[in-house]
Amino acid sequence: MSAEAFAPFGHVIETAGHLPRSINEGTCERFDDLAPVNIVGEGGRPLISIFQAKPCVLPHAVRTLERHPLSSQAFYPLDGRPFLIVVAYESGRNSPRTIRAFRAAGDQGVSYHRNTWHHSLLALGATSRFLVVDRGGPGANCDEQELEEPILVTTTV
Amino acid sequence: MSAEAFAPFGHVIETAGHLPRSINEGTCERFDDLAPVNIVGEGGRPLISIFQAKPCVLPHAVRTLERHPLSSQAFYPLDGRPFLIVVAYESGRNSPRTIRAFRAAGDQGVSYHRNTWHHSLLALGATSRFLVVDRGGPGANCDEQELEEPILVTTTV
Repeated sequence: MSAEAFAPFGHVIETAGHLPRSINEGTCERFDDLAPVNIVGEGGRPLISIFQAKPCVLPHAVRTLERHPLSSQAFYPLDGRPFLIVVAYESGRNSPRTIRAFRAAGDQGVSYHRNTWHHSLLALGATSRFLVVDRGGPGANCDEQELEEPILVTTTV
Repeated sequence: MSAEAFAPFGHVIETAGHLPRSINEGTCERFDDLAPVNIVGEGGRPLISIFQAKPCVLPHAVRTLERHPLSSQAFYPLDGRPFLIVVAYESGRNSPRTIRAFRAAGDQGVSYHRNTWHHSLLALGATSRFLVVDRGGPGANCDEQELEEPILVTTTV
Protein backbone atom coordinates (compact mmCIF):
# COMPACT_ATOMS: atom_id res chain seq x y z
CA MET A 1 0.00 0.00 0.00
CA SER A 2 1.17 3.53 -0.61
CA ALA A 3 1.07 6.34 1.93
CA GLU A 4 -0.57 8.56 -0.68
CA ALA A 5 -3.46 6.18 -1.37
CA PHE A 6 -4.02 5.61 2.33
CA ALA A 7 -3.79 9.30 3.31
CA PRO A 8 -7.56 9.93 3.46
CA PHE A 9 -7.83 7.21 6.10
CA GLY A 10 -4.66 7.60 8.14
CA HIS A 11 -0.89 7.34 8.20
CA VAL A 12 1.31 4.51 6.96
CA ILE A 13 4.05 3.80 9.52
CA GLU A 14 7.13 2.90 7.48
CA THR A 15 10.68 4.04 6.83
CA ALA A 16 10.28 4.10 3.03
CA GLY A 17 9.90 7.61 1.71
CA HIS A 18 11.10 9.26 4.92
CA LEU A 19 14.50 10.84 5.58
CA PRO A 20 15.89 9.88 8.99
CA ARG A 21 18.02 12.03 11.21
CA SER A 22 21.14 10.64 12.80
CA ILE A 23 21.09 10.37 16.61
CA ASN A 24 23.03 8.64 19.41
CA GLU A 25 26.46 9.62 18.05
CA GLY A 26 25.72 8.23 14.62
CA THR A 27 24.71 4.74 15.76
CA CYS A 28 20.99 5.21 15.09
CA GLU A 29 18.68 6.68 12.48
CA ARG A 30 15.43 8.20 13.73
CA PHE A 31 12.49 8.21 11.32
CA ASP A 32 10.62 10.75 13.35
CA ASP A 33 6.92 11.36 13.85
CA LEU A 34 5.63 8.83 11.31
CA ALA A 35 2.20 8.94 12.92
CA PRO A 36 0.61 11.14 15.56
CA VAL A 37 -1.38 9.70 18.46
CA ASN A 38 -4.61 11.65 18.65
CA ILE A 39 -6.45 11.30 21.97
CA VAL A 40 -9.47 13.40 22.91
CA GLY A 41 -12.21 13.26 25.56
CA GLU A 42 -12.15 13.79 29.32
CA GLY A 43 -9.76 11.40 31.09
CA GLY A 44 -8.45 9.81 27.89
CA ARG A 45 -4.86 8.56 27.83
CA PRO A 46 -2.70 6.83 25.21
CA LEU A 47 -1.68 3.26 25.91
CA ILE A 48 0.32 0.48 24.30
CA SER A 49 -1.16 -3.01 23.83
CA ILE A 50 -0.47 -6.16 21.84
CA PHE A 51 -3.17 -7.78 19.70
CA GLN A 52 -2.82 -11.40 18.60
CA ALA A 53 -5.15 -12.04 15.66
CA LYS A 54 -6.18 -15.25 13.94
CA PRO A 55 -5.83 -15.00 10.15
CA CYS A 56 -8.91 -14.33 8.06
CA VAL A 57 -9.69 -16.67 5.19
CA LEU A 58 -10.23 -15.22 1.72
CA PRO A 59 -12.72 -14.56 0.32
CA HIS A 60 -13.69 -12.59 3.44
CA ALA A 61 -17.19 -11.12 3.79
CA VAL A 62 -17.06 -7.58 5.17
CA ARG A 63 -20.31 -6.94 7.04
CA THR A 64 -19.43 -4.48 9.77
CA LEU A 65 -17.14 -1.49 10.16
CA GLU A 66 -16.09 0.38 13.28
CA ARG A 67 -14.68 3.78 14.13
CA HIS A 68 -13.18 5.40 17.19
CA PRO A 69 -14.57 8.87 17.88
CA LEU A 70 -12.11 9.60 20.70
CA SER A 71 -8.78 8.47 19.25
CA SER A 72 -6.59 7.42 16.41
CA GLN A 73 -5.65 3.73 16.46
CA ALA A 74 -2.26 2.46 15.30
CA PHE A 75 -1.23 -1.10 14.38
CA TYR A 76 2.27 -2.33 13.60
CA PRO A 77 2.87 -6.01 12.60
CA LEU A 78 5.33 -7.80 14.91
CA ASP A 79 5.67 -11.02 12.91
CA GLY A 80 6.64 -9.46 9.60
CA ARG A 81 3.51 -10.66 7.81
CA PRO A 82 1.23 -8.63 5.52
CA PHE A 83 -2.27 -7.85 6.73
CA LEU A 84 -5.52 -6.72 5.23
CA ILE A 85 -6.98 -3.23 5.62
CA VAL A 86 -10.60 -2.36 4.82
CA VAL A 87 -11.64 1.29 5.20
CA ALA A 88 -14.51 3.50 4.12
CA TYR A 89 -14.61 7.10 2.95
CA GLU A 90 -17.87 8.35 4.37
CA SER A 91 -18.63 9.34 7.90
CA GLY A 92 -22.32 8.59 7.28
CA ARG A 93 -23.81 5.28 6.22
CA ASN A 94 -21.36 3.39 4.06
CA SER A 95 -22.09 1.18 1.08
CA PRO A 96 -19.83 -1.06 -1.00
CA ARG A 97 -19.21 1.88 -3.32
CA THR A 98 -17.37 3.84 -0.66
CA ILE A 99 -15.08 1.07 0.56
CA ARG A 100 -11.43 0.41 -0.20
CA ALA A 101 -9.21 -2.54 0.67
CA PHE A 102 -5.42 -2.43 1.01
CA ARG A 103 -2.74 -5.00 1.67
CA ALA A 104 -0.20 -3.68 4.16
CA ALA A 105 3.26 -5.21 3.80
CA GLY A 106 4.97 -6.89 6.72
CA ASP A 107 7.05 -3.76 7.33
CA GLN A 108 4.16 -1.32 7.18
CA GLY A 109 2.02 -0.23 10.08
CA VAL A 110 -1.04 1.99 9.92
CA SER A 111 -2.64 4.59 12.13
CA TYR A 112 -6.32 5.17 11.41
CA HIS A 113 -7.46 8.76 11.78
CA ARG A 114 -9.91 9.37 14.57
CA ASN A 115 -13.46 8.72 13.25
CA THR A 116 -12.33 6.78 10.17
CA TRP A 117 -14.51 3.74 9.48
CA HIS A 118 -12.42 0.55 9.27
CA HIS A 119 -12.75 -3.19 9.61
CA SER A 120 -11.39 -4.81 12.75
CA LEU A 121 -7.91 -6.33 12.53
CA LEU A 122 -7.50 -8.79 9.62
CA ALA A 123 -4.32 -10.87 9.83
CA LEU A 124 -3.27 -12.93 6.82
CA GLY A 125 -1.62 -16.34 6.58
CA ALA A 126 -1.09 -17.19 10.25
CA THR A 127 -1.87 -15.94 13.74
CA SER A 128 -0.01 -12.65 14.01
CA ARG A 129 0.88 -10.16 16.71
CA PHE A 130 0.54 -6.39 16.35
CA LEU A 131 1.69 -3.54 18.56
CA VAL A 132 -1.29 -1.23 19.08
CA VAL A 133 -1.40 2.38 20.27
CA ASP A 134 -4.85 3.67 21.12
CA ARG A 135 -6.85 5.09 24.02
CA GLY A 136 -7.77 4.12 27.54
CA GLY A 137 -10.07 5.93 29.93
CA PRO A 138 -13.77 6.72 30.18
CA GLY A 139 -16.03 7.41 27.22
CA ALA A 140 -17.58 5.36 24.40
CA ASN A 141 -14.80 5.01 21.83
CA CYS A 142 -16.19 2.43 19.40
CA ASP A 143 -19.08 2.97 16.99
CA GLU A 144 -20.17 0.08 14.80
CA GLN A 145 -22.03 0.13 11.50
CA GLU A 146 -23.44 -2.68 9.42
CA LEU A 147 -23.01 -2.29 5.68
CA GLU A 148 -26.12 -2.03 3.52
CA GLU A 149 -24.92 -5.24 1.90
CA PRO A 150 -21.81 -7.33 2.63
CA ILE A 151 -18.86 -7.09 0.28
CA LEU A 152 -16.44 -9.89 -0.46
CA VAL A 153 -12.70 -9.29 -0.37
CA THR A 154 -11.50 -12.03 -2.67
CA THR A 155 -7.81 -11.42 -3.08
CA THR A 156 -4.97 -9.15 -2.10
CA VAL A 157 -2.26 -7.87 -4.39
CA MET B 1 14.46 -9.93 31.44
CA SER B 2 11.59 -10.13 33.86
CA ALA B 3 8.90 -7.50 34.34
CA GLU B 4 9.49 -7.67 38.08
CA ALA B 5 13.21 -6.93 37.87
CA PHE B 6 12.63 -4.09 35.40
CA ALA B 7 9.72 -2.55 37.32
CA PRO B 8 11.76 0.21 39.04
CA PHE B 9 12.77 1.49 35.58
CA GLY B 10 9.67 0.97 33.48
CA HIS B 11 7.31 -1.54 31.90
CA VAL B 12 8.12 -4.64 29.87
CA ILE B 13 5.85 -4.81 26.82
CA GLU B 14 5.13 -8.51 26.33
CA THR B 15 2.26 -10.97 26.24
CA ALA B 16 3.84 -13.36 28.75
CA GLY B 17 2.27 -13.09 32.18
CA HIS B 18 -0.76 -11.14 30.94
CA LEU B 19 -4.29 -12.46 30.42
CA PRO B 20 -5.81 -11.24 27.16
CA ARG B 21 -9.43 -10.47 26.55
CA SER B 22 -11.18 -11.76 23.46
CA ILE B 23 -12.33 -9.12 20.97
CA ASN B 24 -13.50 -8.90 17.35
CA GLU B 25 -15.93 -11.82 17.62
CA GLY B 26 -13.31 -14.15 19.01
CA THR B 27 -10.77 -13.65 16.22
CA CYS B 28 -8.37 -11.57 18.30
CA GLU B 29 -6.86 -11.49 21.78
CA ARG B 30 -6.13 -8.07 23.24
CA PHE B 31 -3.29 -7.85 25.78
CA ASP B 32 -4.44 -4.49 27.00
CA ASP B 33 -2.54 -1.55 28.47
CA LEU B 34 0.88 -3.19 28.71
CA ALA B 35 2.50 0.21 29.03
CA PRO B 36 1.18 3.72 29.55
CA VAL B 37 2.39 6.66 27.45
CA ASN B 38 3.21 9.45 29.88
CA ILE B 39 3.47 12.90 28.28
CA VAL B 40 3.76 16.12 30.28
CA GLY B 41 4.72 19.72 29.53
CA GLU B 42 2.99 22.48 27.59
CA GLY B 43 2.33 21.51 23.97
CA GLY B 44 3.63 17.96 24.33
CA ARG B 45 2.08 15.22 22.19
CA PRO B 46 2.72 11.50 21.79
CA LEU B 47 4.12 10.33 18.48
CA ILE B 48 5.19 7.11 16.79
CA SER B 49 8.62 6.79 15.16
CA ILE B 50 10.93 4.05 13.89
CA PHE B 51 14.57 3.85 15.04
CA GLN B 52 17.08 1.85 13.04
CA ALA B 53 20.11 1.12 15.21
CA LYS B 54 23.52 -0.32 14.38
CA PRO B 55 24.49 -3.15 16.75
CA CYS B 56 26.85 -2.42 19.61
CA VAL B 57 29.93 -4.59 20.00
CA LEU B 58 30.58 -6.28 23.34
CA PRO B 59 32.33 -5.44 25.56
CA HIS B 60 30.55 -2.08 25.39
CA ALA B 61 31.80 0.87 27.46
CA VAL B 62 28.91 2.74 29.07
CA ARG B 63 29.99 6.35 29.54
CA THR B 64 26.81 8.40 29.30
CA LEU B 65 23.19 7.99 30.33
CA GLU B 66 20.15 10.03 29.36
CA ARG B 67 16.69 10.65 30.74
CA HIS B 68 13.52 12.29 29.46
CA PRO B 69 11.94 14.64 31.99
CA LEU B 70 8.80 15.22 29.89
CA SER B 71 7.85 11.71 28.78
CA SER B 72 8.10 7.99 29.00
CA GLN B 73 9.86 6.39 26.02
CA ALA B 74 8.85 3.00 24.62
CA PHE B 75 10.82 0.69 22.30
CA TYR B 76 9.58 -2.49 20.64
CA PRO B 77 11.93 -4.60 18.45
CA LEU B 78 10.63 -5.08 14.89
CA ASP B 79 13.24 -7.60 13.73
CA GLY B 80 12.76 -10.14 16.50
CA ARG B 81 16.27 -9.68 17.87
CA PRO B 82 17.29 -9.26 21.53
CA PHE B 83 18.68 -5.89 22.60
CA LEU B 84 20.65 -4.51 25.50
CA ILE B 85 19.20 -2.31 28.23
CA VAL B 86 21.32 -0.26 30.63
CA VAL B 87 19.48 1.69 33.34
CA ALA B 88 20.33 3.41 36.60
CA TYR B 89 18.47 3.65 39.88
CA GLU B 90 19.31 7.11 41.07
CA SER B 91 17.93 10.39 39.90
CA GLY B 92 21.11 12.17 41.05
CA ARG B 93 24.63 11.45 39.90
CA ASN B 94 25.01 7.79 39.03
CA SER B 95 28.01 5.56 39.54
CA PRO B 96 28.70 1.98 38.44
CA ARG B 97 27.21 0.77 41.72
CA THR B 98 23.74 2.01 40.79
CA ILE B 99 23.59 0.61 37.28
CA ARG B 100 21.86 -2.49 35.94
CA ALA B 101 22.00 -4.16 32.54
CA PHE B 102 19.28 -6.35 31.04
CA ARG B 103 18.95 -8.36 27.88
CA ALA B 104 15.49 -7.90 26.36
CA ALA B 105 14.32 -10.83 24.26
CA GLY B 106 13.21 -10.35 20.67
CA ASP B 107 9.58 -10.43 21.76
CA GLN B 108 9.96 -7.96 24.61
CA GLY B 109 9.64 -4.21 24.37
CA VAL B 110 10.28 -1.72 27.14
CA SER B 111 8.86 1.60 28.20
CA TYR B 112 11.17 3.67 30.37
CA HIS B 113 9.47 5.67 33.06
CA ARG B 114 9.70 9.41 32.68
CA ASN B 115 12.96 10.61 34.31
CA THR B 116 14.60 7.16 34.42
CA TRP B 117 18.26 7.26 33.48
CA HIS B 118 19.03 4.87 30.62
CA HIS B 119 21.56 4.29 27.90
CA SER B 120 20.60 5.16 24.34
CA LEU B 121 19.35 2.30 22.15
CA LEU B 122 21.74 -0.70 22.05
CA ALA B 123 20.89 -3.20 19.31
CA LEU B 124 22.62 -6.58 19.33
CA GLY B 125 23.84 -8.77 16.48
CA ALA B 126 22.73 -6.77 13.45
CA THR B 127 21.18 -3.46 12.47
CA SER B 128 17.69 -3.57 13.94
CA ARG B 129 14.49 -1.56 13.74
CA PHE B 130 12.38 -0.55 16.73
CA LEU B 131 8.97 1.05 16.98
CA VAL B 132 9.25 4.00 19.35
CA VAL B 133 6.54 5.92 21.21
CA ASP B 134 7.69 9.12 22.84
CA ARG B 135 7.03 12.87 22.79
CA GLY B 136 7.03 15.67 20.27
CA GLY B 137 6.50 19.36 20.93
CA PRO B 138 8.38 22.17 22.66
CA GLY B 139 10.48 21.76 25.78
CA ALA B 140 13.87 20.21 26.62
CA ASN B 141 13.19 16.50 26.93
CA CYS B 142 16.68 14.98 27.11
CA ASP B 143 19.12 15.33 30.00
CA GLU B 144 22.52 13.69 29.70
CA GLN B 145 24.90 12.59 32.41
CA GLU B 146 28.44 11.26 32.21
CA LEU B 147 29.24 8.47 34.62
CA GLU B 148 31.93 9.04 37.26
CA GLU B 149 33.80 6.23 35.55
CA PRO B 150 32.82 4.14 32.52
CA ILE B 151 31.53 0.62 33.05
CA LEU B 152 32.03 -2.28 30.67
CA VAL B 153 29.11 -4.49 29.69
CA THR B 154 30.92 -7.65 28.75
CA THR B 155 28.22 -10.20 28.10
CA THR B 156 24.49 -10.73 28.07
CA VAL B 157 22.69 -13.79 29.36
